[in-house]
Amino acid sequence: MAGTDSTQTPATGGPAIVLIDAQLGENVGTAVRAMWNCGLDELRLVNPREGWLNEKTVATTAGADAILEKTKIYATTEEAVSDLQHIFATTARPRDMEKPVFSPREAAQRMRAAEGSGGKIGILFGPERAGLTNDDVTFAEAIVEVPLNPAFASLNLAQAVLLIGYEWFQAGRVQRAASDASRDGTRPATQAELLDLFRHLEGKLDACGFLRVQEKRPGMVRNIRNIFTRAGLTDREVSTLRGIVTGLTQRKD
Amino acid sequence: MAGTDSTQTPATGGPAIVLIDAQLGENVGTAVRAMWNCGLDELRLVNPREGWLNEKTVATTAGADAILEKTKIYATTEEAVSDLQHIFATTARPRDMEKPVFSPREAAQRMRAAEGSGGKIGILFGPERAGLTNDDVTFAEAIVEVPLNPAFASLNLAQAVLLIGYEWFQAGRVQRAASDASRDGTRPATQAELLDLFRHLEGKLDACGFLRVQEKRPGMVRNIRNIFTRAGLTDREVSTLRGIVTGLTQRKD
Repeated sequence: MAGTDSTQTPATGGPAIVLIDAQLGENVGTAVRAMWNCGLDELRLVNPREGWLNEKTVATTAGADAILEKTKIYATTEEAVSDLQHIFATTARPRDMEKPVFSPREAAQRMRAAEGSGGKIGILFGPERAGLTNDDVTFAEAIVEVPLNPAFASLNLAQAVLLIGYEWFQAGRVQRAASDASRDGTRPATQAELLDLFRHLEGKLDACGFLRVQEKRPGMVRNIRNIFTRAGLTDREVSTLRGIVTGLTQRKD
Repeated sequence: MAGTDSTQTPATGGPAIVLIDAQLGENVGTAVRAMWNCGLDELRLVNPREGWLNEKTVATTAGADAILEKTKIYATTEEAVSDLQHIFATTARPRDMEKPVFSPREAAQRMRAAEGSGGKIGILFGPERAGLTNDDVTFAEAIVEVPLNPAFASLNLAQAVLLIGYEWFQAGRVQRAASDASRDGTRPATQAELLDLFRHLEGKLDACGFLRVQEKRPGMVRNIRNIFTRAGLTDREVSTLRGIVTGLTQRKD
């Protein structure tokens, strides 16, 4: 559908779109087009396939290629999300993880609320066929699942970006009440702060033998991290938890 | 995103999708894929370009090609819509026409209501560049306009079909029991289990001196409890956290 009015001020801001292991330039390009349809302009790529930026990438943005110029590339998901405070993971198949599962509409409400209290948000998308790995999903405070025909729920990357961006855009058309009045003098913890906490705790759990069964360790670490990512910790709470870990492990001789 | 569960009964029925003057087979194919994502299976083509049905058309449906087999072809829009009772026209640019203009969400509510009273519904989509002619729009009782970034509202055909089909699907969806799908073999912890965990932890924090400042103790206990009540812990997670507290406080002599 034609319908661009270039005299209008573009919408900007909003969540960063984080594409992990993107394979084809045209998939990135069509995702960029969908982003810009929804007023999103921050793209982060984790480990994209070599040569991802080519003529097709630019052509498929359909004119939204300014987003490509400021796209940031990261080697790992961890680096890509370290400054983010609210991370959402898009998945189509159910995961055995203790995380809330939201529809795009519910997730959009939460993102708008988080943005309203100054939070930096990111939405993770995996490669088309495989989707996100469980390790990537672990970074997220919540999962976003698009309710579609259960017999045919497979979306391509651009369509997944479009539906989630669309709901984000629609949610901004509704006046919102601020919800985080109780969090005074604190801010949501960054992913880097959370990872420092996790590593501190896991180091101590290794030392005391709690994580000694090596084949169970990755799953246990994931489960423990999920408890805390789900809680939506503030910077102050992260400090408190680090103090608790230090306190509990102090020798009292 | 992968995520098709072929053991599920497909959703069917719903509005007919009417594509007018479609030019490329792959545009038809990707529109068909989007239709089937949303449980729509009736496609009507008005005056498609010769040769529209080709290998690319089939390939781009991504497996939804059964819809192509029963697609009906019409020479004119009038013939294509003659049996329909409620016609909606999708447009991106405003028209000087005295017709109600709905968002996809509002239109979906009306379509569901019309369907509920036995009405036969169709949604018209024009060719990608030009959109619907005013003559085609005239058939419709209402216009559907997708609210998107005003500086970049141009959608391709499949994306327009997807957004409108998505809203149609959501409007018919039964409210899901929110997040319990991922919780396999566990249940939300009881308040008694939480209190046992809290007392265990606080006892250890008293012992190590973390809570030694008596006038600060009530506030600190409250803050720590808040972290865990907010996380919505399962019974299994409570056990894990108790194991962690025990592990961290074990003396390793």
